[in-house]
Amino acid sequence: MPRILTSTGDYRLARRARAFEHNPWAAAEDLTGQHPDPIYFGNGAPASEIQPLDRLQWAAERAWVEVGGQLGYGELEGWGPLRELIAERMTRRGVAVGPSDLFVTNGSQQGIDLLARLFLDPGDAIIVEGPTYIGAMQVFDAYEASYITCPVDEHGLCTDALEEILRTADRAPKFIYTIPTFQNPTGYSISLERRTRLLELAERHDVMVIEDDPYGEIYFTPDTPAMALRSLSDRVIYLGSFSKTLAPALRVGWMIAPADLMPLLLMAKEGADIHSNRIETRIVYHTATGFLDDHVVAIRDFYRNRRDILFRALSEAMPDSVAVRGPDGGFFVWCDLPAGASADELLSAAAPYGAAFLPGSWFYPGYDGPAQGMRLSYSSLPEEKIAEGARRLGAATDAYLRRLGDQ
Amino acid sequence: MPRILTSTGDYRLARRARAFEHNPWAAAEDLTGQHPDPIYFGNGAPASEIQPLDRLQWAAERAWVEVGGQLGYGELEGWGPLRELIAERMTRRGVAVGPSDLFVTNGSQQGIDLLARLFLDPGDAIIVEGPTYIGAMQVFDAYEASYITCPVDEHGLCTDALEEILRTADRAPKFIYTIPTFQNPTGYSISLERRTRLLELAERHDVMVIEDDPYGEIYFTPDTPAMALRSLSDRVIYLGSFSKTLAPALRVGWMIAPADLMPLLLMAKEGADIHSNRIETRIVYHTATGFLDDHVVAIRDFYRNRRDILFRALSEAMPDSVAVRGPDGGFFVWCDLPAGASADELLSAAAPYGAAFLPGSWFYPGYDGPAQGMRLSYSSLPEEKIAEGARRLGAATDAYLRRLGDQ
Repeated sequence: MPRILTSTGDYRLARRARAFEHNPWAAAEDLTGQHPDPIYFGNGAPASEIQPLDRLQWAAERAWVEVGGQLGYGELEGWGPLRELIAERMTRRGVAVGPSDLFVTNGSQQGIDLLARLFLDPGDAIIVEGPTYIGAMQVFDAYEASYITCPVDEHGLCTDALEEILRTADRAPKFIYTIPTFQNPTGYSISLERRTRLLELAERHDVMVIEDDPYGEIYFTPDTPAMALRSLSDRVIYLGSFSKTLAPALRVGWMIAPADLMPLLLMAKEGADIHSNRIETRIVYHTATGFLDDHVVAIRDFYRNRRDILFRALSEAMPDSVAVRGPDGGFFVWCDLPAGASADELLSAAAPYGAAFLPGSWFYPGYDGPAQGMRLSYSSLPEEKIAEGARRLGAATDAYLRRLGDQ
Repeated sequence: MPRILTSTGDYRLARRARAFEHNPWAAAEDLTGQHPDPIYFGNGAPASEIQPLDRLQWAAERAWVEVGGQLGYGELEGWGPLRELIAERMTRRGVAVGPSDLFVTNGSQQGIDLLARLFLDPGDAIIVEGPTYIGAMQVFDAYEASYITCPVDEHGLCTDALEEILRTADRAPKFIYTIPTFQNPTGYSISLERRTRLLELAERHDVMVIEDDPYGEIYFTPDTPAMALRSLSDRVIYLGSFSKTLAPALRVGWMIAPADLMPLLLMAKEGADIHSNRIETRIVYHTATGFLDDHVVAIRDFYRNRRDILFRALSEAMPDSVAVRGPDGGFFVWCDLPAGASADELLSAAAPYGAAFLPGSWFYPGYDGPAQGMRLSYSSLPEEKIAEGARRLGAATDAYLRRLGDQ
């Protein structure tokens, strides 16, 4: 379990304040202190080497010249030309929308927050994938959601299990939150067949679907991945982001939502922070125009190479009883330890070897799920660190499993 | 009442979604459509003419050169040097804090949201000034607060009334939300005597105080205004902003909070949008360093001049039965109509004259308070518009009051 930060004894806080006692990142980072030169596979952030700094600087100069008279309040939905650019890009990806079908958020994280704000009363049931994105649970915890966890396998969210969940639920859950493509933390994608099935089930049971898609453009296969859920149904609310294709520091993402929810979401956004930064939307627009398509191709090559190195190194270094899953896109390799082993225990055992990762158990509601899985991110580590880290982790895992076998 | 935007019939939304049906600005802006060249006193935004565009552009260039390797995720609490600069400025204003006592928010609006998130369960009582800032109510509505309204007069929040409220409350309210200096919408400030009394009462009844202070540096008197509440008590959580001194589009504000709440607030912020834009904090830092003190002096002169013009023009144009209140700082002139008259009615009556404003009734919980007051903002209107608008409004008010007298 991640460590607890502080007690709230002296203050009369909201019930939800308990959710803010978790700092999900602190514990793993603490462990890296046990080695002089630790290699940390826990950081799922994009690589700074591939960020287009020159282009961003050029775009920033242009944006700052143009923005002149527009430094006041305004553009609650985000700058028009950027929304047009996003709509055009989404349309090319099969999601036929116009600029008024979407609005700009401070990264897709704010989109998750605004949707929880719009949909969730305390105790409301929602369906999440097990495992799922920690940052989404940070939001849903704050809205006191009641979780129903639907298992995930190599073909993505298990729709048979979903059907059973929906059939037996007391009340229909408010929504299904899914990262259908190159999921965080598993790297798995939902197959086309299951996408169709998922949407049929959502329709039948009147459940909204939130599609969080930060990795959809970062695929390693010759063919594009399965179509976005939003391209198959209007019941889907889509969250996109420039954090992985340009840079996280910009905090620019977007949400595609049904027309009759848009005014409510915009007023929710206005309450949250009035509107997003107006210069950044212009910078993203100028950076992306005539550039992002090529840049995304370069990004795919860049991360494919890192995946290859990590997958190969782990396949060599890990004991045979560990299943190593190489994804077709995104940022994460997922490993399953053999039955009876615990990635939480391995995390401590690997610290003296100078290797750390995020145990799979943290990616479940309560940060306390099944302990066999582990997430290794290759996205932000240089090549030589990836290979060396995999060797260290292999040695640590081998020693840990032997010790376990001896008990 | 502001108009309702849409029905939420088909969706199973949260109870709080009703709060997002209000668009507080739409109704007044609609009225401006009744005149070919309307003058709108409703916009309480800073003037674009006084924004230091050249300096911002220079600072942006510098920030974009420096930020290079820091375009990933990070700086949850905001860039260190900016926090040091803010701490130094606050210390000079009597609020002795260090950089770790504060964190950066997306404007002070996000600060209000994070505090509501930390403190408020549905139905929790809070005390707000009557009238108070509409944007704060947009937040508190979303957290389903139960409002207790404490009246305000020319000396600010009425502490006798506050004492009575606290003495008779079933449960102690969670916090008092106040804009103690040049309040939005009245322009009034709390006297030093009442500040001390307010804090004594808060201490005795164990109520937190949220001090929202966007206008504190924009004073028109030779002396500085009364000391910030935060300089007198650690029970006060302070919200500051660069929106009025630099530019709103940047979305950079800050919160000073007790040390043991800081980790909770930072995790709440992480859930809301991971962190703020990292370039903007550098731009604000470079803009402000060695510049902001002089710039604030210029801002004071600039808005003092606009206040003078509006106050003089209204004093001449308004019927004698209307009380016109010129503030000692900030952005707003407040007028009180004579007994029996309604600023809501006057708003409609003034539309054909080409003048609009925000009626006082909108600045109360439910957007439906006493109808005698009206808020006129001079901040974003050029001088000639201010004088002409006051003449139009005077004529409209005169005609409206005569008609009322004839009934």
